[in-house]
Amino acid sequence: MPRSGRRPGAGGTRTKILAAARAHFARAGYEAGTIRGIAAEAAVDPALVLHYFGSKEGLFREAVDFPLDPATFVPHLLAPGLDGLGERLVRFFLETWDSPAGRPLLALIRSVVASEDAAALLREFVTREVLGRLARALQVDQPQLRASLAASSLIGMAMLRYVIKLEPLATARPEVVAAWLGPAVQRHLTDPGLTSGPAKPRRPRNTRAR
Amino acid sequence: MPRSGRRPGAGGTRTKILAAARAHFARAGYEAGTIRGIAAEAAVDPALVLHYFGSKEGLFREAVDFPLDPATFVPHLLAPGLDGLGERLVRFFLETWDSPAGRPLLALIRSVVASEDAAALLREFVTREVLGRLARALQVDQPQLRASLAASSLIGMAMLRYVIKLEPLATARPEVVAAWLGPAVQRHLTDPGLTSGPAKPRRPRNTRAR
Repeated sequence: MPRSGRRPGAGGTRTKILAAARAHFARAGYEAGTIRGIAAEAAVDPALVLHYFGSKEGLFREAVDFPLDPATFVPHLLAPGLDGLGERLVRFFLETWDSPAGRPLLALIRSVVASEDAAALLREFVTREVLGRLARALQVDQPQLRASLAASSLIGMAMLRYVIKLEPLATARPEVVAAWLGPAVQRHLTDPGLTSGPAKPRRPRNTRAR
Repeated sequence: MPRSGRRPGAGGTRTKILAAARAHFARAGYEAGTIRGIAAEAAVDPALVLHYFGSKEGLFREAVDFPLDPATFVPHLLAPGLDGLGERLVRFFLETWDSPAGRPLLALIRSVVASEDAAALLREFVTREVLGRLARALQVDQPQLRASLAASSLIGMAMLRYVIKLEPLATARPEVVAAWLGPAVQRHLTDPGLTSGPAKPRRPRNTRAR
């Protein structure tokens, strides 16, 4: 429903531009996406897109509807250094999800699972805005892969805790889950043994030694 | 579409019983669920439920529509012992998902995310049939928690690989992903340092030592 005081039709145009942006970024990616292309898909003037969203980046963020700004929270998590980063990430992720700010996250998961466009959009966003920032701070080999593995740990926990609601993960306090899961995330991020290549069964590998 | 040769109406009754079973097990759980209660919800005779599905367990399995039988694959993965179990689990999970047998898994994720009943049903099934079997084989503390953490790793990988399609996870071969993720799953399952309790920042913990 349009809020009182809003110019009639403005909500409709904004919504139309956001829908066009979601489809456009999902197909073209962020780098190749253009305001001009989105405006054409929405059948509006490019100047109107800029009027509503300020920039391509602003439009991208609103299109994804991610409840937090990675330009703020990623540096905040990295500030104390790499030591303990795994636990801080898990705890922050769950505390956010449990808070009012995290309410859109379940809807985001639902839309990503239901729609390939939504999945492509989130993939672009997380790669650029979250994993890219995280990877640049890791002083180890294969930082992008490491950040992806850490992300898979967090998303798996979210699926079991908030969607499937499996105990004891569903009701444990965030700091308790962080103690369980944090060391695994930390190893994904900083352990030197990651890239020893595929498993070779029947031959002992030194990465498995304690 | 009904297969030719099937008794008219049988497909409809079967479908109706399965829908009633999904709702009933989701609400009551497996232990408290009854053939009598499901028959009442489907408005059919209990004998007809047994005629179609043989037993409560048979009905439960068909209601969940899990593409694999945990009574077969869990013992198979456990047979070589606990050493290397993490990598075997990851590899088996991804090879299954990539094969024709794994095709229903994406649909299962979709239904679980869209419906609380489907989520409750999968939770009952995975807890009883998969994690219970796995936990009984682990000779360590908190086996059920450990099996849950391993499951969260697998589900997170599935979300990034098959739903969000994040590289390099989306296209890496199963054995390569198993080499990346297997050690983390193994530590969840068998590492003695798991249950050291919640994080205590600013105090070094010996579980963090390499």
